[in-house]
Amino acid sequence: MRESIPISEIFGPTVQGEGPLVGRPTVFVRTGGCDYRCAWCDTLYAVLPEHRSEWMLMTPAEIARRIDELAGNDPVLVTLSGGNPALQPLAPLIELGHAKEHKFAMETQGSVSSPWFKELDWLILSPKPPSSHMTTDWDALDACVTVGRRGLHRVLKIIVFDDADYHYARTVSTRYPALPVYLQVGNPAPLKHVGRRLPDEAEIDDLLARFRWLVGMVTADRWFAATVLPQLHVLAWGNRRGV
Amino acid sequence: MRESIPISEIFGPTVQGEGPLVGRPTVFVRTGGCDYRCAWCDTLYAVLPEHRSEWMLMTPAEIARRIDELAGNDPVLVTLSGGNPALQPLAPLIELGHAKEHKFAMETQGSVSSPWFKELDWLILSPKPPSSHMTTDWDALDACVTVGRRGLHRVLKIIVFDDADYHYARTVSTRYPALPVYLQVGNPAPLKHVGRRLPDEAEIDDLLARFRWLVGMVTADRWFAATVLPQLHVLAWGNRRGV
Repeated sequence: MRESIPISEIFGPTVQGEGPLVGRPTVFVRTGGCDYRCAWCDTLYAVLPEHRSEWMLMTPAEIARRIDELAGNDPVLVTLSGGNPALQPLAPLIELGHAKEHKFAMETQGSVSSPWFKELDWLILSPKPPSSHMTTDWDALDACVTVGRRGLHRVLKIIVFDDADYHYARTVSTRYPALPVYLQVGNPAPLKHVGRRLPDEAEIDDLLARFRWLVGMVTADRWFAATVLPQLHVLAWGNRRGV
Repeated sequence: MRESIPISEIFGPTVQGEGPLVGRPTVFVRTGGCDYRCAWCDTLYAVLPEHRSEWMLMTPAEIARRIDELAGNDPVLVTLSGGNPALQPLAPLIELGHAKEHKFAMETQGSVSSPWFKELDWLILSPKPPSSHMTTDWDALDACVTVGRRGLHRVLKIIVFDDADYHYARTVSTRYPALPVYLQVGNPAPLKHVGRRLPDEAEIDDLLARFRWLVGMVTADRWFAATVLPQLHVLAWGNRRGV
């Protein structure tokens, strides 16, 4: 029997709000459990063990059925997120999904690598910058980057709140020059509401000011290979879940 | 001697706010002159003959020099826009730029095709929907789509204000199934300020509401191959020029 997977939520179709697939319709599968505790984590309900009772244990077949249901049985981009989805044995789900012509993108911090990553269509590595208060395990990240398969799109997505984060992003990018880099403006809402539910509304002006700042950093540095994006879903739907 | 080109403005580096290269640092080269008069055109200063006196006639070498200056002599993505840049003989500029390792993306409505399009790196075809009050010349658009070269990225970017525009986008996409489609929320500011300078500030709430509407249309239709984006530069900088 195939192993069940702790699922925090499955929702969509909506559009991906971040990274290389920004604007693309997708169904999100969010696994429960994480090896990180980022200072500004916006999905603690999928991270902290005290939320475990809210997670559903689902078999790959059950997850695949829910994806098909949400997508009306049409092929769709599936985004595997978390928590850290890399902790879960997701190969059977990907295999089932590929049989239905779904594509799979996984977002992970790159702290854990696994051979099944090569089954993905997109591997979006999001190592966490200093503002997260997490420490990068470079050997683990190296191992994630070298997961190989022709046709697997591997990219870096790095959240930037401040100068230190920006310099971290440059360091990561220098270490992996072959990988496209997406810089993403940080959302400070979780820092302002520690231990509480995030307000539905985002502070749009603040987020756009952060975006302008990051664009200014990148263009002043002539870092023309980087792509700078805000979190589109936060602009459009605020801090609400399920969109 | 190589032909001079009417230039409305050259600016950057800033980030591309639209389409497949959204978030990518770029220098914009905006040519003067257009065969269209879209109802909601946001760059009439590069379209209407009464602005001709503001355009500079520049040789390809002069344009290339200005790009290098703005980009600090580093290779950069150059976005050719207008007006309709397809009306201009841009092959010599592209050749000069490629020698400096710049990449070239051109945005055009697809009303005029030219063999030099194949020298581009990105051809972003943006046929205009019913709300523009323009009529699509399908033969001309066909000719643009079939401009061939391996490695030339050809995509469709279609502005959507309303249901009729949305159905037009579906029609265009059905006609050219091989081309990725980017749907872009329309900015109604020019319709509200006809014949006047646009206000600096954009109506962010309205633009985000339009984005949510368009996402809803696409997901309800299960049009999962489309990408839905707002105009990021309008969210970040409003209707200001030069960003």
